[in-house]
Amino acid sequence: MKDKIKIGIIGGSGFTGLEIVKILSMHKYVEIKFVTSRTYKDILVSDAFPSYMDYGSSNLTFIEKPAKNNFKEIDLVFLCLPPLKSMEFLKEINYDYDFKVIDVGSDFRIKDPDNYRYWYGTEHVLKDMLQDFTYGLPELNKNKIKNSQYVANPGCYPTSVLLGLAPVLKKSGLKITNINIDSKSGVTGAGRKLKSMYLFSNMDNNFYAYSANDHRHIGEIEQEIENLSGKHFNICFTPHLLPINRGIFSSIYCKMENKMNEKGYIEEICDHFKEFYKDSPFIKFTGTEIPQLKDTVGTNMCLIGLCVDSRTNTLKIFSAIDNLVKGAAGQAVQNMNIMMGFDEKEGLISSGIFS
Amino acid sequence: MKDKIKIGIIGGSGFTGLEIVKILSMHKYVEIKFVTSRTYKDILVSDAFPSYMDYGSSNLTFIEKPAKNNFKEIDLVFLCLPPLKSMEFLKEINYDYDFKVIDVGSDFRIKDPDNYRYWYGTEHVLKDMLQDFTYGLPELNKNKIKNSQYVANPGCYPTSVLLGLAPVLKKSGLKITNINIDSKSGVTGAGRKLKSMYLFSNMDNNFYAYSANDHRHIGEIEQEIENLSGKHFNICFTPHLLPINRGIFSSIYCKMENKMNEKGYIEEICDHFKEFYKDSPFIKFTGTEIPQLKDTVGTNMCLIGLCVDSRTNTLKIFSAIDNLVKGAAGQAVQNMNIMMGFDEKEGLISSGIFS
Amino acid sequence: MKDKIKIGIIGGSGFTGLEIVKILSMHKYVEIKFVTSRTYKDILVSDAFPSYMDYGSSNLTFIEKPAKNNFKEIDLVFLCLPPLKSMEFLKEINYDYDFKVIDVGSDFRIKDPDNYRYWYGTEHVLKDMLQDFTYGLPELNKNKIKNSQYVANPGCYPTSVLLGLAPVLKKSGLKITNINIDSKSGVTGAGRKLKSMYLFSNMDNNFYAYSANDHRHIGEIEQEIENLSGKHFNICFTPHLLPINRGIFSSIYCKMENKMNEKGYIEEICDHFKEFYKDSPFIKFTGTEIPQLKDTVGTNMCLIGLCVDSRTNTLKIFSAIDNLVKGAAGQAVQNMNIMMGFDEKEGLISSGIFS
Amino acid sequence: MKDKIKIGIIGGSGFTGLEIVKILSMHKYVEIKFVTSRTYKDILVSDAFPSYMDYGSSNLTFIEKPAKNNFKEIDLVFLCLPPLKSMEFLKEINYDYDFKVIDVGSDFRIKDPDNYRYWYGTEHVLKDMLQDFTYGLPELNKNKIKNSQYVANPGCYPTSVLLGLAPVLKKSGLKITNINIDSKSGVTGAGRKLKSMYLFSNMDNNFYAYSANDHRHIGEIEQEIENLSGKHFNICFTPHLLPINRGIFSSIYCKMENKMNEKGYIEEICDHFKEFYKDSPFIKFTGTEIPQLKDTVGTNMCLIGLCVDSRTNTLKIFSAIDNLVKGAAGQAVQNMNIMMGFDEKEGLISSGIFS
Repeated sequence: MKDKIKIGIIGGSGFTGLEIVKILSMHKYVEIKFVTSRTYKDILVSDAFPSYMDYGSSNLTFIEKPAKNNFKEIDLVFLCLPPLKSMEFLKEINYDYDFKVIDVGSDFRIKDPDNYRYWYGTEHVLKDMLQDFTYGLPELNKNKIKNSQYVANPGCYPTSVLLGLAPVLKKSGLKITNINIDSKSGVTGAGRKLKSMYLFSNMDNNFYAYSANDHRHIGEIEQEIENLSGKHFNICFTPHLLPINRGIFSSIYCKMENKMNEKGYIEEICDHFKEFYKDSPFIKFTGTEIPQLKDTVGTNMCLIGLCVDSRTNTLKIFSAIDNLVKGAAGQAVQNMNIMMGFDEKEGLISSGIFS
Repeated sequence: MKDKIKIGIIGGSGFTGLEIVKILSMHKYVEIKFVTSRTYKDILVSDAFPSYMDYGSSNLTFIEKPAKNNFKEIDLVFLCLPPLKSMEFLKEINYDYDFKVIDVGSDFRIKDPDNYRYWYGTEHVLKDMLQDFTYGLPELNKNKIKNSQYVANPGCYPTSVLLGLAPVLKKSGLKITNINIDSKSGVTGAGRKLKSMYLFSNMDNNFYAYSANDHRHIGEIEQEIENLSGKHFNICFTPHLLPINRGIFSSIYCKMENKMNEKGYIEEICDHFKEFYKDSPFIKFTGTEIPQLKDTVGTNMCLIGLCVDSRTNTLKIFSAIDNLVKGAAGQAVQNMNIMMGFDEKEGLISSGIFS
Repeated sequence: MKDKIKIGIIGGSGFTGLEIVKILSMHKYVEIKFVTSRTYKDILVSDAFPSYMDYGSSNLTFIEKPAKNNFKEIDLVFLCLPPLKSMEFLKEINYDYDFKVIDVGSDFRIKDPDNYRYWYGTEHVLKDMLQDFTYGLPELNKNKIKNSQYVANPGCYPTSVLLGLAPVLKKSGLKITNINIDSKSGVTGAGRKLKSMYLFSNMDNNFYAYSANDHRHIGEIEQEIENLSGKHFNICFTPHLLPINRGIFSSIYCKMENKMNEKGYIEEICDHFKEFYKDSPFIKFTGTEIPQLKDTVGTNMCLIGLCVDSRTNTLKIFSAIDNLVKGAAGQAVQNMNIMMGFDEKEGLISSGIFS
Repeated sequence: MKDKIKIGIIGGSGFTGLEIVKILSMHKYVEIKFVTSRTYKDILVSDAFPSYMDYGSSNLTFIEKPAKNNFKEIDLVFLCLPPLKSMEFLKEINYDYDFKVIDVGSDFRIKDPDNYRYWYGTEHVLKDMLQDFTYGLPELNKNKIKNSQYVANPGCYPTSVLLGLAPVLKKSGLKITNINIDSKSGVTGAGRKLKSMYLFSNMDNNFYAYSANDHRHIGEIEQEIENLSGKHFNICFTPHLLPINRGIFSSIYCKMENKMNEKGYIEEICDHFKEFYKDSPFIKFTGTEIPQLKDTVGTNMCLIGLCVDSRTNTLKIFSAIDNLVKGAAGQAVQNMNIMMGFDEKEGLISSGIFS
């Protein structure tokens, strides 16, 4: 039996932090040493959030701030903080530690400081560390993650988009001329913000686009498209809000130079997707069946399906994830598993809960 | 006081037919003489559908089939029938009438018989009448509707798409190079079909694309784009299903040849939209505010907003309608009002019911 | 053609005030002279709330506070204010007016000042006026309302409960030994409060009881039960929150002294309900069919059904209303119609919007 | 490491059967040998139900009917069949086996054949076996379950009601004079029936009571109340349908003979509940906090809270479960764990997924 590794969670009362706590409670080789929350300090996690079930065994309690000593004993820390706060945290503790770090926030995803400034509107305060962080999309980057001390967990939209796009970008002979992405997210994607737009009375029976012009995830997606394909694309990306709690469904439209109506074409692409993800336990390629969002709720899976519109020479790729699991907490635990040498699936094998 | 006109409704127990009954119950100048339903024959409409409130005043009862005499007294008939059934109905009664006809079904929207065969997979049985039907999108076609005996009520997706696109197609100097439309519809768009995919347990918390390659409304949209712009576009159109009852939200992406980052550009487009719809009481142009679907539920309004993505030279147009009202029954009554010389808004001035 | 009456609305940006604005926009004989909102002052109602459709005709704009002059010209004012604020308002303007008043808030429903203090936890500041206000439940009180200058519009739960109970309380020979009421309300019943419990992420997929012991509407219900039956009952009342926007469904359990298994018993009760409400256009008695909440959404109807549980000698009455319409704004307009001599149904004949 | 036990599932494509498959996929000591479905025979479970994630490891495929040999190797079978079908199945195989049986259906819950006939309207065909089945509510019956070959898994409503009531029924000195239960269930409680009432368009935004007079679970609840208290109560039980997928919330009203306004009274009851369930890992007693249904979704937990209404001498108990987990499949696995000597919690420690 392996020893349990020791974990700290900074920012444990947001949707993502709490989801990590929930997932780790089913992980065989992990012990949570501390989880922080200013709002709920000194309160049992299971009292603050009754949906966290500790089955009498944990008594896990939020603390406001870990002491120096707390950091000494841990093997890995998850940072679940708003923009700008992860780098502040790391700057403050100033390399005085040797634990591994998974930043579930957005501070270390974009590698180029100018690009960071463009999308986040502010100067990065730890530019030197940007290159230390591996972009933690395990299906595309597993070997690098395995040997990293620092991992930047991808954003929820980029996860859903890049997993759908990667096989196309990596297939020789395919020429994409234009990429248009229409994504739809459940409201937990916005976190626990107390804004009137997120009231039940405003969101139920509702649907709309937002940040239609300038969502920060565009920079992250374009960076990784370039890493995958060696080519820069300006993508057209439009996020929308769904009247559900969990899930992102991305409709990815790739206009192709290749004629897409030749016989056998679709089979070839499907075979390529299957091959591409044959060692990825969290990808389920559904071929020309379109995936349904509900199937992913509560799981770390990404479902991907596609079809070809020969009239407009467009390859349509549809991907579905649970934004809080594969789009955040589950992927973070998947990264931890890889960094720590555990089975990639440990703690992450729940099926979906809807039908 | 005007005399009331006399109305017949063929197919009154589908979502659209029933919605027409409901709307007409608030119309000052209309008397419903008959409404048909095989399933509910001889049953009070208010018993079959308790959401239809007759306030003690109507006793409207479904009949299976109108007698010859029934047709003699009516001024206008609404056909709310599945594909192929409207033309069968009109073929059967063989011009033996002089009432006006609004076909809320899909048989007379596409004018070219070859095009009809391509999209509907069958031969049209009343080709001679195709040109007799005016395409009933009042905001674009009011004068022609006014003088028509026959009106083909547009499909729900085409209504939402064409109202968003028309001002751009009609603006001189704008050059669209590509049109990609990602539409999302509530489940009532599928009618009352008893399929497991429409069960609450399957649709709640769910979202997905469907008919991603070949939705019949594509032919209708392309036909009217050509009518508006004089130019044929193969559009990329992808419908999705929302876990709500009512509403269509269309995200319309127009890739432009024009550089879209010049100063004053967005103002010019907004001014053009305002001017274009200045006499259209059912269009609310929200400028660069993105419309919300919930605001349209229960109304005959189409909300339209837009934004410009200068990085990809894309004009993004967002339109929201209630698929059963502006997308079907409400538009049918609006057409009736125009054909009969009533105020276009008569019976159609409800506000939305959500917040 | 009648002259239009002139209306003022104090507190127009809450759910109830806005709903009154929406309903009155379809009323033939009403002109809204002012509608107040501190939050939205000087903003068009249709800009603040796009679900309010003015169809180009109104330009109705929120004002912060009406001037003295504003009051002079109006015939009737709706007060849509939180607890304590209606009496403050009336105290401040100190009888210096002759318009009629419909208080849609809760200040003048309970007639006994001690009782008021018990349920509202504070002293009433206009005790002298308590008796001037007629309890505005039109189905039970129409004649008195007709001749009233002041009407206290009932609470949403009391409306749903009293309409279900009244026929039983008024039937001679029936002896109730115990009344237990389990009510379920949509979230708009809580108003537009920005609390985390009302976030979509908290309410969707959720359901729970609240104020299980001490809801203020208990006092109001018991007062009116006593008025109807001449007898005081301590009722057991438990409100619950439904994950929907609109609607109250009350399950009313009357334990009876009478043996309830005799032949013909249920028919007799059904006949009595029918007779009791035969002149009430907004009551639909569904007999032993249980009403469905969705059928009332957007309407001023109260649906009532019942069944008899002979094993426990319990009469179960089920009532369904839209809490914002029959439970608030619609009933307020119904009261206005009665006070002003209009047809009781004017402006209130919408059918439901769900299926 | 223990050997894995071998499991068969009869009726694996209903909500309950599939949920058992999903839960067992996370169980360390179980191997599923077969799962039956007529509709989906020869189809991969993960193809028929993409929400079942097998993470590449199982290839579990539905079979139509197990062969004789299949039964020989298994240790335990779950029967997930509609009413009448479990007894038919057992009658057919005629004791020719020695595996253990957990009947998740309703055939063996009621012990008295006359009582069975009353509630199910038909003669039981295996009366001799009725007493062989232990009523499988582990919190009340663990020792008996441990030594049983046959277990009848309780109904979903009875589970939620009995867990709330049991501590009161077992507390000496408390005298209940009347029990009224108002339960609310998500739509998965009705199974996968393809009826129009379960369409999304009918259930969304809806709520209503059903079987208001004669739900079969009444007989089961009354039997167990008598077992617990030694006294027969005719209970008043009314089920309602919630517009959500999963969950049962029961509001249990116990009218008491005892005066309930004495000081310290509520503390005493709360202490008693805590003590009563101190060894029950799946019960979370929330004291006077009312539990929220969402917290249980996806978990095997039963949350219980209470309050005292001293005005009407009523103890109000509120219980919340996920009807498919604690109300069916999870409880079945819990029973299996107990029967097989595993940790009661094995495979059942998921936290809730909503907030």
